[in-house]
Amino acid sequence: MDLNPARGTRDLLPATVALRDHVLAKITEVYGGYGYQRIETPALENIERLRGGQGGENQKLIYEVLRRGLEPTVPAGTPLADLVDLGLRFDLTVPLSRFYGANRASLPQPFRSFQFGPVWRAERPARGRYRQFNQCDIDILGEPSVLAEVELIEATSAALAAAGVEGTTVRVSDRRFLSAVAERSGAPAESWDRLFITLDKLDKIGWEGVRAELAERAGLAAAAIERIAEMITGLQGLDAAKLTDQLANTVPNLDEDVLSDLSTLAGGLPEGVVWEFDPALVRGMGYYTGQIFEVTHPASGGSVAGGGRYDRLVGRFLGTDVPACGFSIGFERIVDLLGTAPAREAVAVLYESDTPARTVLAVARSLRAGGRTVSPVRRSGKFGAQLSRLEEWGYTSFVHLRADSAEAGEERQLGDKSP
Amino acid sequence: MDLNPARGTRDLLPATVALRDHVLAKITEVYGGYGYQRIETPALENIERLRGGQGGENQKLIYEVLRRGLEPTVPAGTPLADLVDLGLRFDLTVPLSRFYGANRASLPQPFRSFQFGPVWRAERPARGRYRQFNQCDIDILGEPSVLAEVELIEATSAALAAAGVEGTTVRVSDRRFLSAVAERSGAPAESWDRLFITLDKLDKIGWEGVRAELAERAGLAAAAIERIAEMITGLQGLDAAKLTDQLANTVPNLDEDVLSDLSTLAGGLPEGVVWEFDPALVRGMGYYTGQIFEVTHPASGGSVAGGGRYDRLVGRFLGTDVPACGFSIGFERIVDLLGTAPAREAVAVLYESDTPARTVLAVARSLRAGGRTVSPVRRSGKFGAQLSRLEEWGYTSFVHLRADSAEAGEERQLGDKSP
Repeated sequence: MDLNPARGTRDLLPATVALRDHVLAKITEVYGGYGYQRIETPALENIERLRGGQGGENQKLIYEVLRRGLEPTVPAGTPLADLVDLGLRFDLTVPLSRFYGANRASLPQPFRSFQFGPVWRAERPARGRYRQFNQCDIDILGEPSVLAEVELIEATSAALAAAGVEGTTVRVSDRRFLSAVAERSGAPAESWDRLFITLDKLDKIGWEGVRAELAERAGLAAAAIERIAEMITGLQGLDAAKLTDQLANTVPNLDEDVLSDLSTLAGGLPEGVVWEFDPALVRGMGYYTGQIFEVTHPASGGSVAGGGRYDRLVGRFLGTDVPACGFSIGFERIVDLLGTAPAREAVAVLYESDTPARTVLAVARSLRAGGRTVSPVRRSGKFGAQLSRLEEWGYTSFVHLRADSAEAGEERQLGDKSP
Repeated sequence: MDLNPARGTRDLLPATVALRDHVLAKITEVYGGYGYQRIETPALENIERLRGGQGGENQKLIYEVLRRGLEPTVPAGTPLADLVDLGLRFDLTVPLSRFYGANRASLPQPFRSFQFGPVWRAERPARGRYRQFNQCDIDILGEPSVLAEVELIEATSAALAAAGVEGTTVRVSDRRFLSAVAERSGAPAESWDRLFITLDKLDKIGWEGVRAELAERAGLAAAAIERIAEMITGLQGLDAAKLTDQLANTVPNLDEDVLSDLSTLAGGLPEGVVWEFDPALVRGMGYYTGQIFEVTHPASGGSVAGGGRYDRLVGRFLGTDVPACGFSIGFERIVDLLGTAPAREAVAVLYESDTPARTVLAVARSLRAGGRTVSPVRRSGKFGAQLSRLEEWGYTSFVHLRADSAEAGEERQLGDKSP
């Protein structure tokens, strides 16, 4: 029988889980200090909710669950969709929006949510990409001002640093800025979605690729494309002190709020958070309405965290809009960056097959009383070879109980080559 | 739009998650001391593995997942089963057996596994019963002797006590004992499965109900039923000192190992673990092969933990048997028993709509530097009413930032009625 986990999923072995738990504990501690409270939503959601959540490409990757109680043979002409009533969540933001709508009477205002949990996407498996992976999100619901954005950036930068991811840069943009650029370029409004999707690829395909795609796939006129390229390249790498003036000059149709929100961000972030305005930052999801952000790290190709304001997503569930802003740490990516678990200290109580069980258990118990990690292990094979295996398995010392003695031998360190 | 979670599932609010995390942290600490290492397996498993896992009734409750890439209309005569390739796991034992088979070369011998995670069963929803719930299991794989059983009972009793569940009793029996009783009664071997399932209901339907069902559904002769009832009632409530003698007298065909394993258990368990032999204990799953156990608590109707030895389950995946023994804490049940989360301490930084954001953030930051939980909250409505809400939401104190002052006001306790 094939023993591998289902295609695109993976088993997590003890050392991997230990590292993940360590990283999560650090993040949890920081977010807790900011007052984010952990919630959980079910893995399964009604399928129509998942399909109506503006999840973009992710909605095509939903694992769909069969209704219960169906007949063993499907009647002729049945649409596949009729057989399905539930799906596995593909992110934590759509469920959060539903959760907030359902439970807001019991929640603080504003509500600071922390979520950590698995999501599922039926993507083509690839190196480092899994069909089940964990997301790690904080969100503020009910706070309309940019104070939410600044706090999210501050908290996430602190959480990444606590987890050991240092030297990060926060790239910031604003969906309202992108719309103003599009408007000023003269590109027709119906082409904006495609325009933003294309712009999002600048990192990968460069200006040449972006220009070609804007002409061919978004149908933009050459003049509009040039105006867009000019505005965006002119605003790259700006000094924070000159940023708002330059933005106002380059994009005079820009809303005042975009500028004042950027000023508040600049003045509100603590020293030590390195950030820059990135006029080419787009982010994929359709639901963003204001500032958007990504965190980059020199050792990682993509971003290690990302988020933004989405003031109209909760309204799709609740009927009335609720201001909302969130930041998601790429948990799997930072675990890969960090790579090694904290050291473990563990004692093996080696016993012979005829050592009385009560002796083994009592010795283990007394060693454990000091708060140590202690496990009985039966003697087998050559002594030296077994000690090597114990070391390999993460034991750091051992005691050897001989059959003829009720006393534990002296505790000895593993890896200590003295006799 | 309906905002409730999918039928039979639930949202977990912050106070509930805080309690669950607290209980889990206590259990994790105890199990860590015994050397159990946490692993994770994917939620989705190939459907044929789930169906071949001796999961008993649970196999009928599997959430089945549609293959990807199917046509939108199902061709006539398609068996429903052809549309499915994955399912959500219904327990953590079947995935553990697969995991051990796949990864044993990288695992310590014996391997002490700790698992905590969600499982899914499409059961009829009822009070306190959910379609997604968490299991909390420890297992020892690769240890053939009863030392495994004793350690599991010791560790689980300690974990329950650390979580706050005190006054528990461990009920112990052995599948080999039940087989010997069945054999000695003269019941034909093909009726034993039904016999054990019926006996498992003794708590609920009493001897009268058991007798009737054994006659009607298991087809046992009256004499066999009487012999079974006599053996079992004669062995109930025995003093531990007399246990092995009485067992040997009542069931002389009993294997010597069953008696010596019980003696080892009696001698090996630490003081403070209250246990008793329960000749009517059966447990539902088909895969048990040796000792079985359940933990009861006076405040809970059912058991709060259960487990046993299953030496032949891993072999179904691996081809060769691996001795294995596990204990599962009824996590949802003990969380219900405990009921309240540990107290939270949190400071609200109350600010007016025209307080500068940088002031709000800086005050929050300086209060947070002492390791405290601090969140900005915008002033709104009547002051006294807002303070009451803050208290309700779990804030314990506040500072009030007036718009005209860059200084934080004095910190005041919530619930303190002095002006």
